[in-house]
Amino acid sequence: MTGLTEAMAHAVARRRLEDFPVETIDKAKKVIVDTFAVILAGADSEVEEPLMRYLDMSGADGNVPILGTGRRTSAELAALINGTFGHALDFDDVLSMMPAHPSAIIVAALLADLPEHPLSGREFIEAYVVGIEIGARIAQGITVGHYGRGFHGTGTLGIFSGLAALAKARRLDEAQTRTAFGIAASMASGLRRNFGTMTKPLHTGLAARNAVQAVRLALCGFTAAPDILETKAGFYAAYGVEASDPAVAIEALEGPGVLMDPGIALKKFACCYASHRGMDGVLTLRERLGFTADDVEKLECRMPPGGMLVLTYPAPTTGLEGKFSLQYSLAAGLLDGRYTVWTFTDEAVRRPAIGELLKRISAYEDESCRDDDPLFDTRSSGGRGFVDVEVTLRNGTRDEVRIFKAPGHPSRELTWEDIEAKFDDCAGHAHIEKPMVKQAFASLRGLENCASVATLVDMLHQ
Amino acid sequence: MTGLTEAMAHAVARRRLEDFPVETIDKAKKVIVDTFAVILAGADSEVEEPLMRYLDMSGADGNVPILGTGRRTSAELAALINGTFGHALDFDDVLSMMPAHPSAIIVAALLADLPEHPLSGREFIEAYVVGIEIGARIAQGITVGHYGRGFHGTGTLGIFSGLAALAKARRLDEAQTRTAFGIAASMASGLRRNFGTMTKPLHTGLAARNAVQAVRLALCGFTAAPDILETKAGFYAAYGVEASDPAVAIEALEGPGVLMDPGIALKKFACCYASHRGMDGVLTLRERLGFTADDVEKLECRMPPGGMLVLTYPAPTTGLEGKFSLQYSLAAGLLDGRYTVWTFTDEAVRRPAIGELLKRISAYEDESCRDDDPLFDTRSSGGRGFVDVEVTLRNGTRDEVRIFKAPGHPSRELTWEDIEAKFDDCAGHAHIEKPMVKQAFASLRGLENCASVATLVDMLHQ
Repeated sequence: MTGLTEAMAHAVARRRLEDFPVETIDKAKKVIVDTFAVILAGADSEVEEPLMRYLDMSGADGNVPILGTGRRTSAELAALINGTFGHALDFDDVLSMMPAHPSAIIVAALLADLPEHPLSGREFIEAYVVGIEIGARIAQGITVGHYGRGFHGTGTLGIFSGLAALAKARRLDEAQTRTAFGIAASMASGLRRNFGTMTKPLHTGLAARNAVQAVRLALCGFTAAPDILETKAGFYAAYGVEASDPAVAIEALEGPGVLMDPGIALKKFACCYASHRGMDGVLTLRERLGFTADDVEKLECRMPPGGMLVLTYPAPTTGLEGKFSLQYSLAAGLLDGRYTVWTFTDEAVRRPAIGELLKRISAYEDESCRDDDPLFDTRSSGGRGFVDVEVTLRNGTRDEVRIFKAPGHPSRELTWEDIEAKFDDCAGHAHIEKPMVKQAFASLRGLENCASVATLVDMLHQ
Repeated sequence: MTGLTEAMAHAVARRRLEDFPVETIDKAKKVIVDTFAVILAGADSEVEEPLMRYLDMSGADGNVPILGTGRRTSAELAALINGTFGHALDFDDVLSMMPAHPSAIIVAALLADLPEHPLSGREFIEAYVVGIEIGARIAQGITVGHYGRGFHGTGTLGIFSGLAALAKARRLDEAQTRTAFGIAASMASGLRRNFGTMTKPLHTGLAARNAVQAVRLALCGFTAAPDILETKAGFYAAYGVEASDPAVAIEALEGPGVLMDPGIALKKFACCYASHRGMDGVLTLRERLGFTADDVEKLECRMPPGGMLVLTYPAPTTGLEGKFSLQYSLAAGLLDGRYTVWTFTDEAVRRPAIGELLKRISAYEDESCRDDDPLFDTRSSGGRGFVDVEVTLRNGTRDEVRIFKAPGHPSRELTWEDIEAKFDDCAGHAHIEKPMVKQAFASLRGLENCASVATLVDMLHQ
């Protein structure tokens, strides 16, 4: 029987973009553009200052751009920093089956390698598609028990997505790819206990940096075990659980690809996914009835049981708390009629008008929001049952809306217009001039026709 | 109750060299000198070429010396490369209780930080002593079950030794140290399946590099969980086993220090520890009887049951195989009367005289080499029972010797003369000129009086 490492290396070497359904290209491009957006926004987040201080201390030179900063550094540090930016706002994609946020790892790793190994847009997409596939399948085989033990799949599994993307881009042969897997598995790390600290997004950066390093060491003639994923004292053995099964991962490679099934979720709002459906409800009602915040007598948001588990700040005082406050998120929608990265800043959260609005808003879990989904209890707080939002206006009008799936869920894919709005917002935070943002977005949207991704990246690196 | 991370950070901040028994300084210096020696020898090993190719590819500049190469690079890459050199020949120290090879991690991490943060010899020793202590205690608490699962303690636990040494050297406060633990735990990695490949010594380099990075990120204001070692979804939970117990690690901090009890083993010969007692027997007999290889009719080496488990090459053809060949190791001792790094090169192994000698040598496991040690079955192959070596000369003389502990075992500590011989041999392999080697050794032997370790290191960096 083929071993897991061999099967994965074979898939990396053999699968080309043409082998995936044609819709894959559009789906991949949406995630790639989304990932560039969140990296740019992350360059304006709280991790930027310590990372730039670290960069100064390291003194590493190089020619790889750090997006949104105007600076360049070594491939390793650029991968680390761009990757960390990508997850800094928790605004990047979600692959629930993994469970992880793999795309910032892949994009940061590919960017770091560009000066050494230029890519066309089509090659970039191909590498991305292969990368997302391999990490997801390794995750499927090891099962969610891996996450249960305390590992953060973004770091521990995402590294294989980054490695596979780079191996594809570099056209490594199967033996080199197996060696790169061997090296990378000895670098896999990331603990869930660090959620809520800067080290959570660092997992993304570390995975990207380690993927770059593993592939380059393999290219330079370094040696490692050729069967690291499946054997005794290997990856599944050390990081897995009883249920971990290499055969599941190998078999899953047969499908149309993870971007087609189950699909990947892109976040529409820069906050906790569990708030997303309620926020969508507010925007829907506002658009339907044409009211403003002043017109509202009361707003009620009914959540499924367990739906408010992580939404623990009814009256937040910082932007970070606002990300985990359903009440604030609803109030900001009533007041502004839209959500941006700015919505979750200290400044936005502390507006007096918000304090006034919060008195008219109630949000609570309600048994009536449970559906007959047999997997209800295993769904995450943002994905179980449905959410009801009900508004009563001062003029007596009453209306309500029921939302089953959050915007950005694979069944409610973000439109290109949604993504353009997110891109504009995020790139604006990185202080990139509007015409350049427009031009970069157009190039990314037509990525498969782009001759050089490095040239495109330069637009975002002023 | 004090948590494990808090207890470790407290120990790092509070323990000074004066708090350890005075003999600690001499013991620490022996290991430090030994570690410089093996790093230098590693610079002439098979990992050198791919690592230098990688260095060229990375293009990272910096002012940290890579020992034995004449080159300098960034702190991160220097830690990675010096660390990997240190374990490349498997000739570095062994801390069986860990089980790991921690010293090359500590030394490589401290060296990487020197240009940013100069140290005197005494500060260097203090940082080393604290570093070796902390990693060993974290290892004691997680138990050997961690290693059993497939993790290589050198990478996964050694990182905490490196971090503690740097935190001590940098005089981090307790809160910063706890943050550094939080970051470092999200970087811990290394799989045993990579034994026998270049990725095994890479674990040492990765741990050193990650320790440097964790401490610097903490210094730059990065945040992480303050209780990473002991809590849910933290280090012990994810990397440990049922028996892992933080209290054991905390309690163990009370003792006189791991360098005093149980002590650390330094390797006298550049090969598998399991061959060491037989090799010691050959040298003892040769010295006692004054014979040469030509005088020998036959040589028998009787090993304890299980003692030859990893010595699987009765007739090796490469230097690497020779490291795991008891028969060859015995033959080389008969022929040369001493062992050096050169003994385990392809050239040395392939000498025709060796082939002749192997016919007169027999080595086998024998029930008679079992002692009444109740822990016999749990000892490693190099540490169980005893070894008998018997020689018969052509003139009819017969003699035998019984060895219980290998040279370098804490109960048979290497003398300063042994260490000087090892240092000379290793530094010679790094092509450092003899007068400079002599001077460097003298400075290292008096390390506690050295004003600047950076100046000392420059001697070894021509």
